Amino acid sequence: MRLKGTISYDGTSFYGWQMQKGYPTIQSTIEEVLRHITGTDVRISGAGRTDTGVHAFEQVAHFDWNHRLPLEKVALAMNALLPSSVRILKVTEAAPDFHARYDAKSKEYLYRIDPNPVYSPFSYGYALFYPFRIDLDLMRECAKMIEGEHDFAGFQATGTDVVGTVRRMFRVDILPEIPDWATDRRLLGIRFHATGFLRKMVRFLVGTIVEISGGRKDPEDLRIALDRCDRSRAGVPAAARGLFLEKVHY
Amino acid sequence: MRLKGTISYDGTSFYGWQMQKGYPTIQSTIEEVLRHITGTDVRISGAGRTDTGVHAFEQVAHFDWNHRLPLEKVALAMNALLPSSVRILKVTEAAPDFHARYDAKSKEYLYRIDPNPVYSPFSYGYALFYPFRIDLDLMRECAKMIEGEHDFAGFQATGTDVVGTVRRMFRVDILPEIPDWATDRRLLGIRFHATGFLRKMVRFLVGTIVEISGGRKDPEDLRIALDRCDRSRAGVPAAARGLFLEKVHY
Repeated sequence: MRLKGTISYDGTSFYGWQMQKGYPTIQSTIEEVLRHITGTDVRISGAGRTDTGVHAFEQVAHFDWNHRLPLEKVALAMNALLPSSVRILKVTEAAPDFHARYDAKSKEYLYRIDPNPVYSPFSYGYALFYPFRIDLDLMRECAKMIEGEHDFAGFQATGTDVVGTVRRMFRVDILPEIPDWATDRRLLGIRFHATGFLRKMVRFLVGTIVEISGGRKDPEDLRIALDRCDRSRAGVPAAARGLFLEKVHY
Repeated sequence: MRLKGTISYDGTSFYGWQMQKGYPTIQSTIEEVLRHITGTDVRISGAGRTDTGVHAFEQVAHFDWNHRLPLEKVALAMNALLPSSVRILKVTEAAPDFHARYDAKSKEYLYRIDPNPVYSPFSYGYALFYPFRIDLDLMRECAKMIEGEHDFAGFQATGTDVVGTVRRMFRVDILPEIPDWATDRRLLGIRFHATGFLRKMVRFLVGTIVEISGGRKDPEDLRIALDRCDRSRAGVPAAARGLFLEKVHY
């Protein structure tokens, strides 16, 4: 039986989602738990391979289940063994050929920025601390430019070797007032909704937007980076700790 | 020159506010930083002695400043040396006889409860995970009972030896929908505003409210615990990790 799991994790102390020999990853942590429960090797396959330090509100993954433990107990059993930094929000039965990555129609990522003069001890690991000039109108101008279909080859990790680098960006929303835990604190969010994302694409886009909104780059740089896939016009990637995989749509 | 500092901290890895030989506390961490900056011993005195594991959005403390570093640089210098779990939000000049504890007119504490079926990796250390029955009407009934002037002797840590145990509770607010970081998640908050608090008082009150709202105790137990200072009718104290010192009023 193929299962679809929805997973939330704090990526702070993991080397990303995907298995890497000798390093703790979300995937290897979950597979170790599945091995404990089933006594066999169970491979889990995620919708997006989040990088080192990147978080997820709702990652999706599929895995096959051939064990006597009934479906409704799988999430409970996994959560009982997982560290508190990884939670299985739910597990449901999926079509036998369901594939978390190939069947995903689109994904949403949220990038959080703390623009306050002093950061909060509670959000330090979960936002980019940026107490400098931010022009929201320039941010919105960047957001508009990024929307639509583009070749994002100028906004990916170097050394990546993917075949297609064109993605459709449905929306980029600037959220100037997302709540933080302390009642009167607000953070700034940038939400990206696209058919797919290249490696470090959101972090390169955020880095570029932040430099432009702070007056250190021109909106024209973003346009050229997008139109000519010119990496030299893009900014440096923003810190992983501000990034959350928010939702996978099927 | 007497200074007033507003301080936020993540209490997870501290043995509370107050100095304890051999254990890391917020006070000792800040005093060590002040020693580095000034080269002398500077004593810092907080408005409330939060317990092990308790957090603060806005703790207030006073200390004396006889160093050449100008006032406007004190918070910056302290933050540069402090761990990310402790932040000086601001430092201002106070009256020469200002006392953070004795001059405080009232304090607000917020207790956060995660009532969702699965906890969030991001709020686990910052809320009581309680995925069980919670009757909000019963909670509000408890809140009303706690408001007003009471002898809270039945709601304090055993072995405490304070002279007066009467406090005026201005308000107890049940906040059923406080935002969490994941967009569609909500937490439950209980905010207490009183002239002062006994040791573990909020945690005893929350433990009692939660047991009553879950049907495991009767509202009458709370009334008796309040009227007769009967500790046996009160619940067990709720976990420290859900508690935040939110504000000190002067």
